[in-house]
Amino acid sequence: MDVKAYGTPAADQPLAPLNISRRAVGAHDVQIEILYCGICHSDLHQARSEWAGTVYPCVPGHEIVGRVAAVGNHVTHHKEGDLVGVGCIVDSCQHCAECDDGLENYCDGMIGTYNAPTPDAPGHTLGGYSQQLVVHERYVLKITHPEDQLAAVAPLLCAGITTYSPLRHWGAGPGKKVGVVGIGGLGHMGIKLAHAMGAHVVAFTTSESKRNDAKALGADEVVVSRNPGEMADHAKSFDFILNTVAAPHDLDAFLTLLKRDGTMTLVGAPATPHPSPNVFNLIMKRRGLAGSMIGGIPETQEMLDFCAEHGITADIEMIRADQIETAYERMLKGDVKYRFVMDIATM
Amino acid sequence: MDVKAYGTPAADQPLAPLNISRRAVGAHDVQIEILYCGICHSDLHQARSEWAGTVYPCVPGHEIVGRVAAVGNHVTHHKEGDLVGVGCIVDSCQHCAECDDGLENYCDGMIGTYNAPTPDAPGHTLGGYSQQLVVHERYVLKITHPEDQLAAVAPLLCAGITTYSPLRHWGAGPGKKVGVVGIGGLGHMGIKLAHAMGAHVVAFTTSESKRNDAKALGADEVVVSRNPGEMADHAKSFDFILNTVAAPHDLDAFLTLLKRDGTMTLVGAPATPHPSPNVFNLIMKRRGLAGSMIGGIPETQEMLDFCAEHGITADIEMIRADQIETAYERMLKGDVKYRFVMDIATM
Ligand SMILES: [Zn+2]
Ligand SMILES: [Zn+2]
Ligand SMILES: [Zn+2]
Ligand SMILES: [Zn+2]
Repeated sequence: MDVKAYGTPAADQPLAPLNISRRAVGAHDVQIEILYCGICHSDLHQARSEWAGTVYPCVPGHEIVGRVAAVGNHVTHHKEGDLVGVGCIVDSCQHCAECDDGLENYCDGMIGTYNAPTPDAPGHTLGGYSQQLVVHERYVLKITHPEDQLAAVAPLLCAGITTYSPLRHWGAGPGKKVGVVGIGGLGHMGIKLAHAMGAHVVAFTTSESKRNDAKALGADEVVVSRNPGEMADHAKSFDFILNTVAAPHDLDAFLTLLKRDGTMTLVGAPATPHPSPNVFNLIMKRRGLAGSMIGGIPETQEMLDFCAEHGITADIEMIRADQIETAYERMLKGDVKYRFVMDIATM
Repeated sequence: MDVKAYGTPAADQPLAPLNISRRAVGAHDVQIEILYCGICHSDLHQARSEWAGTVYPCVPGHEIVGRVAAVGNHVTHHKEGDLVGVGCIVDSCQHCAECDDGLENYCDGMIGTYNAPTPDAPGHTLGGYSQQLVVHERYVLKITHPEDQLAAVAPLLCAGITTYSPLRHWGAGPGKKVGVVGIGGLGHMGIKLAHAMGAHVVAFTTSESKRNDAKALGADEVVVSRNPGEMADHAKSFDFILNTVAAPHDLDAFLTLLKRDGTMTLVGAPATPHPSPNVFNLIMKRRGLAGSMIGGIPETQEMLDFCAEHGITADIEMIRADQIETAYERMLKGDVKYRFVMDIATM
């Protein structure tokens, strides 16, 4: 099946219309008519080969929502017409401990939604900046939000689950004080989700100007991390800090805000290392520094259901396909509240 | 009460005989005739003011064992003649969450056995390189090992609990693969304890020459960490790694050996930072890097009882008090298997 897509033939070329093909629908496959696709920082890094290993043509996009157009003979959980989503994962080994535990995101054989090896043409996966997608049913999520919220649901498939999974894993909830560092695509979801989970949420930002925005997103308190006095007021008080900032920064400033047995979890990886954290800050209160990557398929479904139940979507700005390069440039400047979503109908 | 001690009046002076005084035995105090005191790296750093804040005269020593010489009127858990120990903690606030949880080691008001503020003369605590000690009963541990093992029990009070606490906290036991990095005073205890807890223990050393020693201590496997091939054989396989090496080193080499959700815990703090760990190695498998400091009083008692039950003591080399400077120099070169213990009778 030939479909239109937006992608790039090389790292130094802008994204532009491309024709790609999708495989025939297999027995366990779901064919999805893509309606919207969120724009993630990873898309930009991959398209521009800023991380190692981009293969071309590159079609990014892993915050995918749409409607089931067809299903294979053995598909039982999805049917034509259903609203569904696909996130960062389109395949995995399906038999390792991670897959068995529903943590396909940690499977060594995890196949990303773009730029990962596949038997399909052209030999690597092509993402959601495209009209159609064919995916094994295991990696297709049900969407129960009202249909008019569909575009704003798209970013839940990466930004949502990337923050939901660590918040759940480290026990965000009533009685817990949870920090969210950075108020961008990931951070704005982290604030909404931690708030909905019932935690006392403190948002950290470097810009005074984001104070009111963070409150509106659900933060109980906002700390401008450039103000040492404000930071000191929260010393040794957090159960958990979700750090969404990928740019290299001083981790100790946040580690010292954790109470005994608290953990700070990083969900962004910097291109150059953070300054090395002070080991004393870990030792003194048995603190932990951890990482987390996206989330598994069952917890992605759980997150979508949780968001539908609590009326949570991303704050988005819709773009046409031909605005993608402008969107990337604005995203690099942090000039978006808080996620761009491509309307695939404009392709 | 005036007692003999070994200490130093200044950072650039060798340790030598001193006379110090101990407070009168209060209602909740235990007076201990010290018989042996283990020699910890911290002693040397503190005596030589290599960490900030040493006050003089400095009398180190926090691996203390001896016999109860007298008890205050309200002391119920200890009596004259009992074999007892005192570790790194001689006081704490006794009313914070940490103290309530029996984790006095994480109390902000924790008073170390030496170099910490006290109303007693000379205004800071003086440690176990001395003939007598007076301590609140809460911080006095019972020793049930046979009396002839007493000298070898001394290092359990710091090296033992510093490794026991994180091994227990992170669940070392049957079915778990546990690494111990470094085979010195701390590491040799870590190997013995993890083995006794039933874990599969892999010791990491930089020296080929320590292979057999590590096996004798209880390691199931030994990896020379300078051999990349040996390291690669253990990739993504550890539940927990206890890292006892304080010298700056490449943490990523060990973080990549953790399986999903594994943690590496540091119990030594380097004078200059480790190279900054690669955040991707944390994110990819939801790994954690943590710290741990000594242990609480109840778990120190639990550790001593566990060691008595399993016949565990430290491997020691006994020294006379006047050999302390030579012992420090040898300790700096790693030339001890594995802990020096001072015979206080030689003072
Ligand atoms: Zn993404
Ligand atoms: Zn798998
Ligand atoms: Zn010590
Ligand atoms: Zn306390």
